[in-house]
Amino acid sequence: MTFDPETTTFLIAGPVRIHPRVLRAMSMPSLNHRGDYFHGVVGEIRELLPVLFGAKGRQLILSGSGTSGLEAVYSSLVPKDRRTLVLSNGNFGERTDLIVRRYSSSVTTISAPWGQPLPAEQVHAELAKGDVGAVCVVHNETSVGLANDLTAIAPAVRGSGALFLVDGISAVAGIPVEIEKWGIDAVVAGSQKGLAAPAGLALVHLSERAAAALHPGTFYLDLAAHLKSLEKNDTPWTPAVPLFLALREALLLLKEEGLATRLERTHRLAEASRAAVDALGLSLFPERRHASDTVTAIRNPEGLGDAELRKVLERQYNILVQGGQGALTGKIFRIGHMGIADWPDLLVTFAALERILGKAGRLPAPGRALAAIVERMP
Amino acid sequence: MTFDPETTTFLIAGPVRIHPRVLRAMSMPSLNHRGDYFHGVVGEIRELLPVLFGAKGRQLILSGSGTSGLEAVYSSLVPKDRRTLVLSNGNFGERTDLIVRRYSSSVTTISAPWGQPLPAEQVHAELAKGDVGAVCVVHNETSVGLANDLTAIAPAVRGSGALFLVDGISAVAGIPVEIEKWGIDAVVAGSQKGLAAPAGLALVHLSERAAAALHPGTFYLDLAAHLKSLEKNDTPWTPAVPLFLALREALLLLKEEGLATRLERTHRLAEASRAAVDALGLSLFPERRHASDTVTAIRNPEGLGDAELRKVLERQYNILVQGGQGALTGKIFRIGHMGIADWPDLLVTFAALERILGKAGRLPAPGRALAAIVERMP
Repeated sequence: MTFDPETTTFLIAGPVRIHPRVLRAMSMPSLNHRGDYFHGVVGEIRELLPVLFGAKGRQLILSGSGTSGLEAVYSSLVPKDRRTLVLSNGNFGERTDLIVRRYSSSVTTISAPWGQPLPAEQVHAELAKGDVGAVCVVHNETSVGLANDLTAIAPAVRGSGALFLVDGISAVAGIPVEIEKWGIDAVVAGSQKGLAAPAGLALVHLSERAAAALHPGTFYLDLAAHLKSLEKNDTPWTPAVPLFLALREALLLLKEEGLATRLERTHRLAEASRAAVDALGLSLFPERRHASDTVTAIRNPEGLGDAELRKVLERQYNILVQGGQGALTGKIFRIGHMGIADWPDLLVTFAALERILGKAGRLPAPGRALAAIVERMP
Repeated sequence: MTFDPETTTFLIAGPVRIHPRVLRAMSMPSLNHRGDYFHGVVGEIRELLPVLFGAKGRQLILSGSGTSGLEAVYSSLVPKDRRTLVLSNGNFGERTDLIVRRYSSSVTTISAPWGQPLPAEQVHAELAKGDVGAVCVVHNETSVGLANDLTAIAPAVRGSGALFLVDGISAVAGIPVEIEKWGIDAVVAGSQKGLAAPAGLALVHLSERAAAALHPGTFYLDLAAHLKSLEKNDTPWTPAVPLFLALREALLLLKEEGLATRLERTHRLAEASRAAVDALGLSLFPERRHASDTVTAIRNPEGLGDAELRKVLERQYNILVQGGQGALTGKIFRIGHMGIADWPDLLVTFAALERILGKAGRLPAPGRALAAIVERMP
């Protein structure tokens, strides 16, 4: 089948499928980014951002993708005179480490193997040594389909007085991020994940004490400059206007659905996916109790690599799922089910997987994966 | 008149009007940014970028607005161990100074008052003192409607061996930028100016020696990382996918028109605007021989401020032009005529200006401004 983006079942780990309302919002003709209408758009976005973050605070929009939001936060909040802890158990944890080390020479990295949970005791022990100014962690490790349990470390981080800086790029609007309860000081969300807007914007939530602690980082991503402009519904530099229009529409859609409803649907789709994986005789990559609700990472079965599985989904059935990154290339595949993904997406994907495994003589019981999904529908 | 972006005559100094083909390109459903189709899009863009720059070289696409491109270039090419010259005669020259000083403690700024040409002899004298590693200049100062004459300094910069780093955000595809002839090492173009794509992307051209001289700057805007990924038609971080699709379409439009034709039309529109300004009894803000072809900056006549002129254009005639920045607020207004701006835009704008001045009893000779435009049509 020739690739046709208009009819593809689109379940990669983000960017996710975009609602046509959001796509159409970008076709508005040029606006004066310093004029009343656009200031109004920025104002509406600011009023809607608490729906996304599930909390109020100092919330910013950066014209750059998720990584720009991370650099904005780390460059202006990682302390120069105290230690920073980086927690890492996947590709994005490693990226955190790379960024943070550009801005601090006193970094302690606590790692677990990709896909394994973070060692909370080790975090507690490092915090107990003292002098930690910031703790940086990826909440949802898309690369391995794992959600890090922040409740296991949040009280200790809060108790230490360190700033709690969270990469929530694929977590926000995908899994519960309890900003206030866990005492998070900065969260970065990507536009193209749970929110289901196009890629290209980073949304940042700051606590009051984080806003007060900002020091100059990079120029383009200067959070203090952005906060100051936003007070007038303005941006310090020219914004990516069409992406702002799309963001407004995606936030309106999220408000109409409700954050809790979106999280609940994402969770149900994840539970259904995991049950279907069992029924297919396949196995999850991460430990089951740490499996992410936004993306299900599945081990390729013996003898069925990318060429026999993922590429067939794509070419034969026009279903896009994602492969593994780095050392996991060809070893796992990942089905995203966040944003506006819904039951039809899941049904057609697992139907195709049943068919592929059936043809290969590797299907334990025909129909069982689909039945597992149907049973978990609302 | 209620603001209606669908029918507005849109002549601010950028973002500029976007062709419907380019707007529609953004409504394509989500793409896998690591898949074959999107790699193809990036490949096509790379093949088309020499049309934009009028030269071949190492050319990059950054998911950030023009300022991000400037920081990318200055942070990775301004030398840490030698002097940097910054030339400044407007708002964007001052911004250059701010960015460069984040990355070097040895900066000499050569300024002229806003709207006055740069003092070339002073540049020559500073270069003659030696130890200059980079020269940074804004080619087209949108803020004051002035084009800096790079031919007056290019041979000396080249002769000194310093890197020649040019903010071409509003120059590229608006006025001639002779990258090879003038020996420019880095040019930053904005997507939303002469190219007439949406705001949100920076395009960067590097000479071979600039590409070889890159040192680590910021993480998100790391030019070496971008160059490496681009070799595989890829990006190091998630790109702003819809903006890339729009960029491809805008580059195709530019290729169909031809860079020379676009520059010629922009020049003709500028000549016509200047003649019409004369006919209205108004005066240009910059020295005439340095007036920019992309934007005409006009002094507000005595007693007719923003409220009586620019705001009336907007409210009564749905024509958007731009006011002054900083100290020039209320003192000048600026008509952009780059990108896909064309004769109808100019005719309706000067017709409205004739009407406004006529009603105020300030029009020297009815019809003369429009006649001046008509005479300069092809």
